[in-house]
This record gives sequence, C-alpha cells and structure tokens, in this order.
Amino acid sequence: MAEPIYYRSARELAALIAAREVSAVEVLEAHLDRITQVNPQVNAIVTLVAERALADAQAADAELAAGTLRGPLHGLPVAHKDLTETAGIRTTYGSPIFRDFVPDRDAVIVERLRGAGAITIGKTNTPEFGAGSQTFNQVFGATRNPYDLSKTCGGSSGGAAVALACGMVPLAGGSDMGGSLRNPAGYCNVVGFRTSPGRVPSWPARTNWLPLSVDGPMARTVADIGLMLAVIAGFDGRAPMSSEGDPAIYAGDLGRDLRGVRLAWSPDLGGLPIDPAVRALFAARRADFAALGCEIEEATPDFQDADEIFMTLRALSFEAGLGALLDTNREQLKDTVIWNIEAGRALSGPQIARAMRLQAELYQRVQRFMERYEFLVLPVAQVPPFPVEQPYVSEIDGVQMGNYIEWMRSCYYITVSGLPSIAVPAGFTAAGLPLGLQIVGRYRDELGVLQLAAAYEQASGFGQRRPDLYPTIEAETR
Amino acid sequence: MAEPIYYRSARELAALIAAREVSAVEVLEAHLDRITQVNPQVNAIVTLVAERALADAQAADAELAAGTLRGPLHGLPVAHKDLTETAGIRTTYGSPIFRDFVPDRDAVIVERLRGAGAITIGKTNTPEFGAGSQTFNQVFGATRNPYDLSKTCGGSSGGAAVALACGMVPLAGGSDMGGSLRNPAGYCNVVGFRTSPGRVPSWPARTNWLPLSVDGPMARTVADIGLMLAVIAGFDGRAPMSSEGDPAIYAGDLGRDLRGVRLAWSPDLGGLPIDPAVRALFAARRADFAALGCEIEEATPDFQDADEIFMTLRALSFEAGLGALLDTNREQLKDTVIWNIEAGRALSGPQIARAMRLQAELYQRVQRFMERYEFLVLPVAQVPPFPVEQPYVSEIDGVQMGNYIEWMRSCYYITVSGLPSIAVPAGFTAAGLPLGLQIVGRYRDELGVLQLAAAYEQASGFGQRRPDLYPTIEAETR
Repeated sequence: MAEPIYYRSARELAALIAAREVSAVEVLEAHLDRITQVNPQVNAIVTLVAERALADAQAADAELAAGTLRGPLHGLPVAHKDLTETAGIRTTYGSPIFRDFVPDRDAVIVERLRGAGAITIGKTNTPEFGAGSQTFNQVFGATRNPYDLSKTCGGSSGGAAVALACGMVPLAGGSDMGGSLRNPAGYCNVVGFRTSPGRVPSWPARTNWLPLSVDGPMARTVADIGLMLAVIAGFDGRAPMSSEGDPAIYAGDLGRDLRGVRLAWSPDLGGLPIDPAVRALFAARRADFAALGCEIEEATPDFQDADEIFMTLRALSFEAGLGALLDTNREQLKDTVIWNIEAGRALSGPQIARAMRLQAELYQRVQRFMERYEFLVLPVAQVPPFPVEQPYVSEIDGVQMGNYIEWMRSCYYITVSGLPSIAVPAGFTAAGLPLGLQIVGRYRDELGVLQLAAAYEQASGFGQRRPDLYPTIEAETR
Repeated sequence: MAEPIYYRSARELAALIAAREVSAVEVLEAHLDRITQVNPQVNAIVTLVAERALADAQAADAELAAGTLRGPLHGLPVAHKDLTETAGIRTTYGSPIFRDFVPDRDAVIVERLRGAGAITIGKTNTPEFGAGSQTFNQVFGATRNPYDLSKTCGGSSGGAAVALACGMVPLAGGSDMGGSLRNPAGYCNVVGFRTSPGRVPSWPARTNWLPLSVDGPMARTVADIGLMLAVIAGFDGRAPMSSEGDPAIYAGDLGRDLRGVRLAWSPDLGGLPIDPAVRALFAARRADFAALGCEIEEATPDFQDADEIFMTLRALSFEAGLGALLDTNREQLKDTVIWNIEAGRALSGPQIARAMRLQAELYQRVQRFMERYEFLVLPVAQVPPFPVEQPYVSEIDGVQMGNYIEWMRSCYYITVSGLPSIAVPAGFTAAGLPLGLQIVGRYRDELGVLQLAAAYEQASGFGQRRPDLYPTIEAETR
C-alpha cells in the first residue's frame, strides 16, 4: 500500500506539488480529512482555518499553473503554535485572557513560512503562555499523546508535535525556552530543533536580548527540519539578535562522513535522576552512533549554576513579558505562571547581574568542552510520557523535584548553554511510549547538528517514516 | 614636503610595506619617534612596549622577505585600549587595583589585529574602568587634547583618539558603551565607529548578552576604519552575540552614488540642550550632505525612555562586571564607579524587566523610523571639549545635568537603539577645537554607514589627512 499523502515528508510533498503531480488542494484535503478523523481524540489543533486554507491552496495551484513557484514550501500545509501571532487568526497563548484575541500581524516565522508558499491550516495547542512541558490550558483543555491517549504529549509545543505525529501537517512551528521544541518531539516520535539564539528571528518579542526563548522548526524527519529551517532562519531587522549566516545550507544534502567525529555521551548530565526506562533506551542507542564511526566517550560539561541561571532569567523573562497581566488579570492566570512572575518580582539587580555573569562563565566552560567534542548526546526528558491528568513530574527515580519545571533540567541545562540541540526519536519503552535523544552541537553549528541527526536517523531506523512506528491511534482511526 | 610616515593612512602604509617600499621597522621607528616627541605632552600611550614591537617588526620584515604576508595589516603599528586584555602587557583598566595586572591572554580584537599582521606598540589611556567620557585616572593621570592641551580629549577611548590625532599609530582599538568610541573621536578630529552589538566579537566579557558595550575601530580616515573593521569583525564562538556576516566587504571600495538617499537631520535629538558652538558647526555641515545629493529632512526618532533604559542597564552592567570589587576594594574605586555599582545594587527585577521591555519598544520605534530614512545624522557631543581639570559636564546651554554621564545623551540614546554610528570630523569651533558628527545607519548596516561617511569625508574636507588640520601641537614639537 502506498504511503498516504498525509504521512509523506515535506520534501516529497513539495517536490510532488512543484512537479504538479499532486495539487496543493489535494494535499490540503488529505490533511484536513486526517484532522477531522484524528484531532478529536488528541486535541492538537485548536483553531482550524479550513476555508482560508482551501482558498490559499487554490491560489497556490493557480500560481503554479501560471508558472510561479512561490518558494520551497509552495502548497505545503503548516500549523503555527498558539503562542505565535497570526494575522486574522485567533491567537490565545492558551490563556482565557486572550480567548478571543485576533492579531493584526504575522510573527516573522509565520510571514516567512507563508512567503515560501506554505499554507496555514491553523493553530496548535500549548500550555498557558507556554509555561510548563505539559500541554493543557483552560481554553482548550489538554492535548493527548497519540501513542497512548492517557498520557501527555509533553510541551509546550505539544499540539505541534502531536499534529506532526498524526499526519495533520508535514511541518509545524514551535518555540523553546526550557525544552518546548524538544520534549514534545521526544514524547511523540518526531523531530524538534532548538537552534542557537538568533538563528531564527523572534518577532514580535517583549524583550530583544534575552537568549532563552527561541522559535524553531518541528517535522517528522531531520531533512524536513532542514528544509523548514532554511526558510525561517536568517537576519531580520526587527529581531536584533538574529543572525546573518546564509540559511540555504540547511535545505541541501545533509550527508557527511562522520567517522572519527568526537562525541560526548551523557546518559544523565553528570548525575541528574533518570527514569530506568529512559536510561535503558538511551544506552541502546549508543550502538547507532558507534555504527557511524563516531568516537564516543562518556563525558558531560560542567553545568554548575545552570539551575540558578535558568530560574533567575526565566523569572525575569516572565516579569518582562507577563508582569502587567498579574496586576490586571491575576485570577485568570494559572498558579505556575503567577509563581514565575512573582519570582521575577522578588529578584534584585545583583541576583540578575550574578545570573548573567554565571551564564557567561558556564558558556565559556561549555565552549571549551565543545572544542574537545564536536557533539554532546543526551536524553531529551528524564522520564517517559506520564498521565495526562498530572500537571508536571514531581519525582524522578526516587528524587523529589523542587518545582514544576525542575524535571526538565535535561533540556534547560542545554538552554542556558546557548548551544543548538535537536530532539530526534530514540525508540519506544516497553510500554510503547516514545522517547527522544538530544544531539547538541557547537554554538551556531546548526548544520553539523542536522548532519549527525540525519545520519543517526538512518542508522537507528527510529524515525516517524517507518509505518510500523506510526501512533497506535492509527489502528483505531483507519 | 612629503607627508611624514606617521601621518600616512593605514591603507597607504600597508601597501607600502607589502610592496617592500618601506620596511615594518622603518614604519615602527617613525611612530616610536613620534611617541617620544609628542606623548609626554598629551599622555595618550600609557604603556609602551617598544622592544617587543621592534622584535615583531623585524620578524614582519623577515616574513615578507621570505614571501609571507601575514594579513592586511602586516607591519602596521597599533595600540590597544587599556581596558582590553593584552597577553604579557600590563592592562590596568585605569584602576590602581590593576596597576600591575598582566593578563595571560589577548582579547579577540587584539588576537585578530595581531593575526592580520599588526604590531602592538602599547596601551592607550582610559578613565577608570571606562566610566565617563573624560580620560583621566589615578594610575596615569589625564590625557590632553592635542588641539588645546588645557582641554579634555573626551573618552573613554581618549588615549586612542589622541594617539591617532598625533600620528602615534595609524589604527587603534577602542570600546563604547555610552559614546566612548565616538566622543573622543569627535574631540580629536579622528574617526570612531560604534557598530551594532555583535559585529565585533567581545571576549573576554563578564556578560554575554547585554548589548551596551561594544569593541570597535578608530582611525584617521573612514577607509582605514573599514580596513580595520574587516579584520576585527566576524563570528567568534567565544562571543555568542557575535554576528556571522562576512566582514571583507568593509575593506573594499566604499564609493557609492548617494543621490536621493533619505537622511534624517537631527540637530538636537528632539530637544536636548546643545551648546551654540556645536549647533552652529553642525548646521554648517548640512551643505556637505546636500552636495552628495541626499534628501535631507529634519527628523528625530522617538527616544522616549532612553534615559531609563540606559541608566538601568548600565547600572546592571556595572554590578555584573565590577560588583565584586566594591566589596573588596571600595576605597580604590572612584566615586562615579561606586555610584554606578550602587545603582545596580539598588535595582529590582521589575525595574530591569521594564528597562528590557522599554528597550525592545524603543528599538521597534527606531526600526520603523529607519524604514523611512536610511541614515540619521546628529552631533557627537552636545558641548565642545572642556577644561581637562573638569571631570564631567554639569551644565549645557543653561540646563543643569542630573549626573556625570547625562551630558552624553546624544551618544547613549544611539547606544540604546542598537544602531551603528560612526563619529567623523565636523570641523572646528572658533576657538579651534574639533567637533564631530554621528552618521547612524540601519541596524547591522555598517557598510552603508561607511559609504556615507566616506563620501561625507570627501565632501566636507574635514578629515585628519589635511595637514593644515593636524593638531596645533605640531608647531610646538616639530
């Protein structure tokens, strides 16, 4: 049986549309049908603009018929995270305060995807203001893991990951402060790439030079991540931290001989509690990197102070972005968001100065570590997907967590380092739940990360493109 | 009479050395003689490494004889600011605490200049920790304006500007938080370029992502600034905010047809107090831009909140960089530095968050303004050079200043905008004191700024290369 359109890769679909072997309307309808069929069970897409998308797809076909290819994503359906502003399409941030908010502008990432020919089909679910790696909110409820509907899909780009896993879109936008592009990718057997800050311009933004939150690509394959990154990366004057490197390189061939490449293998980042199921699965993947000829050593950079840096700058960022809402709409904010903002309010200048200084020191330590190793490989999450009713993880392998985000240290330690990190599928637990691993590269070396990830994807065979690894929801909905 | 070697441009000298028409040793000795003759009067160079420089120059000549050109600055003498770490050469930061400090590493800007073949002759004077636009400190005393020894040369890259003005070096490094590359250039009839943050990598640095302080080039001509910028700009992994654009473009031909280019002309940034002498000289320069065919309109971006942003982030930056010294060496710090650090200690998280948010808003406003105008032109300083005994300006045109840096608003308003700004000579007051003007370009468009500045330099004829505009100190010392 031929692979259904809705599970084809973005690169394949783009080529088929450009060659006019399938129309943009056919591609869109296949995905819309899939959404109708599957979305009610998982709640990944929370705002659907089917009519507008259909009109856009018809226009895309007409343009092609007239010989115009708008860009490398011509006719491809995409979805945007509900934290991302979309002109004319409701953008709630998962907050009841913004239940009916319709922006009048597109974020840069949306503008670029559309400029490259992609067709917006709607918005994907996210926790309230993206806070927490579990996708639920008062406006739309929870998004469920397609591999086990009783489990979380992670977050905060949880709707995006589920939409990809279920074939609702071939590409989706996300964002990541403490793991939000990586954790849902890991929990849903798809790929999410947190790049170095500035690789993808962030606009609009409440602050310009805080390097925590980044926008980024999600897809089912590493090559598709590269295709999308080539469109969304590159300098934009509205985002002053954005980087000038030519992004076209990410869309090319990612093949590379990786023999002899030095790789630091870190099963627990030097002592973080790790669930035994995660530990076992991660250990099993080492052979895949060995098969590529990499020189693997167990090693971890010194992440001392990473917690203090992250918690301080995160609190500062919440106060900068959401502080005003605490005064005007406190009763409509969830407790954890209030907690983050109040932490920001309690900060002093010296605490912030110290966090910035410690981050600079940590960056330099990690930088020197990455002179010895080209890559660092570690698990995405420290635990497998957990019950969807549980708002966050409070214990790992017998160790109590101090707050609602501490269980995401394996992700946010990488955030504070500034290094690019891709989450790729690492297989399934005995209970059939997906897990991911992170491939971390040198600062600004997104190409290197994509190259190793693409080779690993081949070697491991754990990508989404293996029909036997599609979500179990398949069986129920076919 | 032929122009003396020590007043030739860096481009000319580099070409002469590369062609072996003069030797690096001859060039060095001409500059060392000049330093011997002039420096005692102005106190620009505070640490001289003549022997090391001579050995380097001999090595440079030997390399050339063997057919090796190390880079575009092969054999050119340069000086580094005494805030900049130089391996094996005393680096005091203008502070008695570091009177005998000898770093074991070169800052990136030093490493790159040396890598391109430049020869370090020594360190240039700066106020204590660069604080204040007046160059004096307890270690070395004051640096004097070569056009009037009773006046200040500005600061904080004051030693660098004076060294250039007097022919002690053809190129010098500097840095700029609130105007420190621009104000001394303006006061000494030379050129200083504050680029967009990240254009020149800053390493070592106490913080990585605060966009206030930048390292940058100083020279006597705009073309020489381009030559130097091409060497010192470009990504370095140790400086995560550093930008990836190819810097080679700055060393090329800067010629451009500027007819029809839209230029915002701002005599007082929308209402800052300006000394009448500055106002008159600035007004006279408008004709030079008109002669280039620019379309000039009087207009100023909305700099609302610039003071709050700058004072808050500056205080944060002082606490981050120097806070520890306040605890251990308070009695060795000057009052204004203590004041800045204590302001940082008194800050709250919400104040810092607010400053970051306001900066993002100001950036977006200025960004939109710069869509209408390609350039903004304004005076460098609001007052002419003042008595060297006066630590800072406390009144301008009848308006009292609130603190020791407020008189530098015409510079630090541009700092908070993030835009690149070059200070170029604007002529002389009736009292014979030099003044500069700032050409501000679009974010990251350093090339555009250099192009307009080079054309203006021609049109105005006020560059340092006119022998009749050399410092008056000439007459006394020849």
